[in-house]
Amino acid sequence: MRRAVDLAARGLGRTSPNPVVGCVILDPAGRTVGEGWHKRAGGPHAEIHALAEAGDDARGGTAVVTLEPCNHTGRTGPCSRALVAAGVVRVVYAVADPNPTAHGGADALAEAGIDVEAGVLAAQAEEVNTAWLTAVRRQRPHVHWKYAATLDGRTAAADGTSRWITSGPARADVHRLRAESDAVLVGSGTARTDDPHLAVRDVPGAEQPLRVVLDSSAAAVAPGARVLDDRAPTLVVTSTTADTSVLEAAGADILRLPAARDGVGLDLRALLAELHRRDVRSVLLEGGPTLAAAFLAEGLVDRITGYLAPALLGAGPAVLADAGITTITQAQRFTLTGTELIGPDLRITAVPRTTEES
Amino acid sequence: MRRAVDLAARGLGRTSPNPVVGCVILDPAGRTVGEGWHKRAGGPHAEIHALAEAGDDARGGTAVVTLEPCNHTGRTGPCSRALVAAGVVRVVYAVADPNPTAHGGADALAEAGIDVEAGVLAAQAEEVNTAWLTAVRRQRPHVHWKYAATLDGRTAAADGTSRWITSGPARADVHRLRAESDAVLVGSGTARTDDPHLAVRDVPGAEQPLRVVLDSSAAAVAPGARVLDDRAPTLVVTSTTADTSVLEAAGADILRLPAARDGVGLDLRALLAELHRRDVRSVLLEGGPTLAAAFLAEGLVDRITGYLAPALLGAGPAVLADAGITTITQAQRFTLTGTELIGPDLRITAVPRTTEES
Repeated sequence: MRRAVDLAARGLGRTSPNPVVGCVILDPAGRTVGEGWHKRAGGPHAEIHALAEAGDDARGGTAVVTLEPCNHTGRTGPCSRALVAAGVVRVVYAVADPNPTAHGGADALAEAGIDVEAGVLAAQAEEVNTAWLTAVRRQRPHVHWKYAATLDGRTAAADGTSRWITSGPARADVHRLRAESDAVLVGSGTARTDDPHLAVRDVPGAEQPLRVVLDSSAAAVAPGARVLDDRAPTLVVTSTTADTSVLEAAGADILRLPAARDGVGLDLRALLAELHRRDVRSVLLEGGPTLAAAFLAEGLVDRITGYLAPALLGAGPAVLADAGITTITQAQRFTLTGTELIGPDLRITAVPRTTEES
Repeated sequence: MRRAVDLAARGLGRTSPNPVVGCVILDPAGRTVGEGWHKRAGGPHAEIHALAEAGDDARGGTAVVTLEPCNHTGRTGPCSRALVAAGVVRVVYAVADPNPTAHGGADALAEAGIDVEAGVLAAQAEEVNTAWLTAVRRQRPHVHWKYAATLDGRTAAADGTSRWITSGPARADVHRLRAESDAVLVGSGTARTDDPHLAVRDVPGAEQPLRVVLDSSAAAVAPGARVLDDRAPTLVVTSTTADTSVLEAAGADILRLPAARDGVGLDLRALLAELHRRDVRSVLLEGGPTLAAAFLAEGLVDRITGYLAPALLGAGPAVLADAGITTITQAQRFTLTGTELIGPDLRITAVPRTTEES
């Protein structure tokens, strides 16, 4: 199953709106005879790839798969039927399919007389599919906030300079996060100050994410902005009715959304609903302190990756702006899920603390 | 030598103005026959404890010691002579003694015909003695800044509440740091806001550090302050000539120092010189953002321990105040030396980046 999870991870950033899935086929003697992973939506599922590689060796064998095999006919036929047809006698999977249109595969397999075991290495398999599972459960994309800061929580010096707070290896790691995401999101402040490119660089075979700029007044992105080049699609989201034809002519898609209820910024839930409708399942939030605070204040951050430079500034913009928290008991609490040295910097990952823990 | 370093560490916080030292005596067959560590200034050195335990078994054996054996007669006799008298034929040590009054032990041993080897596990032995070595080299105490903050670098919420940002285990770990320090230092802001106690709790056998409050105008510490109880000695440092007899009556020592050149706060180099004169070799800086910034601005921070709570506040006081850094190239850069989970929190340690690294 560990191998199947590794195979699944190869699909990250490419399979939306589908999950990532990995599958290993073992022959009756327990030897690996087929491996597969889901490579892109519309293409064969992991099981089909693995069964094709296994051929007749699958007969009497076991399929190990990270997600409950599907039971419906979408762009491809149901995997449950393919596993039965291949003569597999046992199916071991990690995570049940929460998708109402696809689930039921385990039942179908059991009815066909196949020995079915669920829950093996479920935590690891949940982890690799966390964006998709979140999207299915919440009916909105998974939101992953990435930031880079000094130990004292600054993202730039007092004069606004920030190149570079973190090291080359840490900045390269961000490109990996982008490659694993369906969309990369910034606000107008970042667009104006940094003129970011937001495309993936130096990740072999990466699919480019949708670049999304929240620009309520359609004033932060102008023709010539780096985000308007042709390296990746770009969506400018605004709440104005101002003429945006010059941006459209420069290649950007325009999305008009209501303003947030407080009148500042955009309605983020409406934004996520629309991105979900466009098959975006995972969003990497690369915006500045204001945008991050807006997502946090609405409880819309599902994961944090922070790159901490072992440096101190003592002044300059903070990594997070006012999110409406006034006293310590309202602090947004997270659970650390990982710490790793990336060059001289420290990368930490965290997810919201669940109520059971607090 | 690893064992000798562990033995040395047992003396941390108790031996000033002396170093911590550990010693293991091996008999001619390489079996451990004696162990010792320096327990307190004025008491026997590590070698003497270890030789006493070894007795005649030391004859023909090896002494493994974390620091070059001393060669002078202070409150105790020279260890070099004791090692020769015990019949040891080989001495392995880690770090040379930089202290001009005590060094020369290695030469004396060699002259007596003993086989001497230096530099074994020197990095680990330097690490355990870093405070003392810094103090000898710089002629001032080693300064260790400890802070606790959220991921966004806040030490309290917008309304000033901060109990508790970090977990019980993290706060307990701070008592270990205090126990390993000769003095614990806060400024008037912290004294006024938190009324801290600053003594060591729940560390078995700990020596209490000197509690030092920098209180330029002698207005932050008043009779009844927790720092004035009898659990540990307390020094109030001021630059006023105001009457402090009420504090003295409450048990505090008073130290009058010049104000800093900029007129804000005290002359920190004069403070450290005076603490050094009082045999303080290690200071734990527990002050707030202003005091930390003052030490940093003068390049007086030798080590950082940060307790990072996986939490976000978005507002509230920052962990570090303005330290005169205006642009990114002036950022104070450090090298991470450790990261460890302490309960749900992350403890990071760092030391100033040396010029070779930058």
